[in-house]
Amino acid sequence: MESYDVVVIGGSAAGVTAALSARRNYPSKSILIIRKEENVLIPCSIPYIIGTVGESMKSLIMVDHMMPNHKIETKIAEVSKIEKEQKHIILGDGEAIGYERLVVATGSVPAIPPLPGKDLKNVCTIVKDVSYLEAMIEKLGKAQSLCVIGCGFIGVEIAEECRKRFSNLKISMVEMQRNCLQLVYDAEYCRLAEEKLRAANIELILDEKVEALVGNETVSAVKLQSGKTIPADIVIIGIGTKANVGLAEECGLEFGPTKGIQVNRYMQTSDNNIFACGDCAEKVSFFDQSPTALKLASIASTEARIAGANLFSKRQVCSGVFGAFATVLGNTAFAAAGLTETQALEKGYHVETGEFESPDSHPGCMPGSGTLKVKLIFEAGSKRILGGQAVGSFSAGELVNTISACIRHKMTVDDIITFQIGTHPILTASPITYQLVNAAELAYAKMIA
Amino acid sequence: MESYDVVVIGGSAAGVTAALSARRNYPSKSILIIRKEENVLIPCSIPYIIGTVGESMKSLIMVDHMMPNHKIETKIAEVSKIEKEQKHIILGDGEAIGYERLVVATGSVPAIPPLPGKDLKNVCTIVKDVSYLEAMIEKLGKAQSLCVIGCGFIGVEIAEECRKRFSNLKISMVEMQRNCLQLVYDAEYCRLAEEKLRAANIELILDEKVEALVGNETVSAVKLQSGKTIPADIVIIGIGTKANVGLAEECGLEFGPTKGIQVNRYMQTSDNNIFACGDCAEKVSFFDQSPTALKLASIASTEARIAGANLFSKRQVCSGVFGAFATVLGNTAFAAAGLTETQALEKGYHVETGEFESPDSHPGCMPGSGTLKVKLIFEAGSKRILGGQAVGSFSAGELVNTISACIRHKMTVDDIITFQIGTHPILTASPITYQLVNAAELAYAKMIA
Repeated sequence: MESYDVVVIGGSAAGVTAALSARRNYPSKSILIIRKEENVLIPCSIPYIIGTVGESMKSLIMVDHMMPNHKIETKIAEVSKIEKEQKHIILGDGEAIGYERLVVATGSVPAIPPLPGKDLKNVCTIVKDVSYLEAMIEKLGKAQSLCVIGCGFIGVEIAEECRKRFSNLKISMVEMQRNCLQLVYDAEYCRLAEEKLRAANIELILDEKVEALVGNETVSAVKLQSGKTIPADIVIIGIGTKANVGLAEECGLEFGPTKGIQVNRYMQTSDNNIFACGDCAEKVSFFDQSPTALKLASIASTEARIAGANLFSKRQVCSGVFGAFATVLGNTAFAAAGLTETQALEKGYHVETGEFESPDSHPGCMPGSGTLKVKLIFEAGSKRILGGQAVGSFSAGELVNTISACIRHKMTVDDIITFQIGTHPILTASPITYQLVNAAELAYAKMIA
Repeated sequence: MESYDVVVIGGSAAGVTAALSARRNYPSKSILIIRKEENVLIPCSIPYIIGTVGESMKSLIMVDHMMPNHKIETKIAEVSKIEKEQKHIILGDGEAIGYERLVVATGSVPAIPPLPGKDLKNVCTIVKDVSYLEAMIEKLGKAQSLCVIGCGFIGVEIAEECRKRFSNLKISMVEMQRNCLQLVYDAEYCRLAEEKLRAANIELILDEKVEALVGNETVSAVKLQSGKTIPADIVIIGIGTKANVGLAEECGLEFGPTKGIQVNRYMQTSDNNIFACGDCAEKVSFFDQSPTALKLASIASTEARIAGANLFSKRQVCSGVFGAFATVLGNTAFAAAGLTETQALEKGYHVETGEFESPDSHPGCMPGSGTLKVKLIFEAGSKRILGGQAVGSFSAGELVNTISACIRHKMTVDDIITFQIGTHPILTASPITYQLVNAAELAYAKMIA
């Protein structure tokens, strides 16, 4: 029987990162990644294959190309079983492969609500599969009207990219929450995102639930609970994902309250030799250690680095997760990290916020200059930062990582006021008007008022 | 006699920021900013008035425009004297103005080496004065050849901007250090900067000292200690600045080892009612509290926020400074924070580094994609981060602030490996190849090897 020190199941963000971290931490161990897809799509880039990138085969994680440089073997095969007592896995063709440590990084699959009509033709989800997505794009090219169900990140990115590629397509979106992107931004930032979508001629139907998908073999409309019917000859459901955990269930690993594989702070499952990371693993909130169903490629890669580091020695700790996100709508970046003000209030924090907007270069008349607005959310008593939102120029994409660093290290409003900033006329706001620090100072002014 | 709770002397980055912070911290206090220049240039933007912005009057700090919104009064006048026992200042016309607290933010003036020929016509420095700079730009327009003395930030930015505006001007630069920007980057990054300058047809003369400026009334050449002579009908000296502290000296404030006004951790001078901040204030290193002559607008604004917060109550603390910088050469951003590897070794740290380069978007074929390279410097024993350098796409400008947050909070290599990243296909590297985290993981791998 073939055998490896480390076997990783899954070739996406979690699996590849776990294997790379295992290699860096344990240079002499043998490592194998098994994945079922011949071509692994970069998960966050899936919307962009429709318009901006234009082709799915340009948007792949180059597993077979990258891994040999790191002395990591790869294999394309379906794993049919984990036999944890024997410390081996069984492939679809019956072959057994032994392991010392196993990393389960099987990801997630689209969540599909139990709607009448969900099995009609032209009802699509965002499956991480090249041929499925290519077929979907072909159908979009022939369609007159698209309805996207769900206005989270995946939904709004898909809708915008469809607009870029198919200028004549009628596009509508349905969302049961009051606002787009409501899980990530406070209402005033959500409304900015909605403006961008409407400016792209995308109809938004908010605060409405879908009752059924209607059609004869092929979908023709979306019926809402309010009674309204939206014509749609193609529907894309983008309401989120659920952990892909069949293998882990069958072999008897323990599960957490959000149906992810239970892991400890070392990303170790209920079996000492098996680690799990990414969308398939259970997570707790960084803030209060409560269960959270947050699923992001960036969280997957962080967990994977922790799992990879801990395989043979306990080296890194997962202290719970919070989201750090960014997207682009129109030509405006939307980024956020940690809790929104609404979420912080729901969790019972006494909250103070500060907000500041200024040009993203200085002077503001610098060619190509835009503006950047930052909102920070603090706990009023401890003065600890809980979250932040940034909207404007593309530098928001990295600024959110500064906010993430502040959250992770429980920095206070004082720490951020006295931040040592790097600034430059072409690249950032001026030191006087640097958004992050000014937002903190304005929050502080309210705290002492 | 007119009197204010707070009087600030200086209308640039430190003065304006100190006044704003004073307002936010003490809403009911009366505040006056006195400055001597009618038009205050944004200090970091001075090189850019030559080419990119094209006009100095577009690059001003709008003191008189901004301050009334914050109920801060402004006055244009020269301060001739501080009478600290009486708690008032005397203006040039003899008028006295009383204060409860005084903030000295008088900045710096260009350092001019005692070179023979330094007083010849067409030998310029970078003075923060609109009419001086406009006259310099006019002279540049008539010149055949420019020699810039000093290859620090100000020198390289001036040279590049002169190239943008005056395509036929012969430009040379002389630097006594072995590399351009040597105080900020390790040699391999300096060499990348030098490539950009040479690509812009700027001649670099490194590791050479200037012996004299030569000419008959007007400068015609720069003579080097090696004997070489460089023809130049205009010379710009950009070798740094020295604290502008005449007023503070005359009134008997104490001074520090680098000739700055001595301040304590609250930015308070030897007189309890007088604070100082920015280029005129003495500074110590964040790393070992040793004296440092580092002068940056971004440091000035940080110190100013601390001074402004502490005027009537001790609210914020300065824990020492480190540089966080960025510039753009060619179309490439160069950014850095904290110690270089060379500086860390000189300070006696046992150092380990990690470096990682990857596309700044994902997939790498995303339109407009570039690359970004990050080097991190750690103390090997404590695993604490000491510094970082980033070169590549413009997002380096904000990435350096994430590095700054990590340095300031003494994060370890483990903290950065387990960082919760926000990523997006258009805005950043992929979560697998995110530069900051991978550089940390590679440094860690060396530490445990």
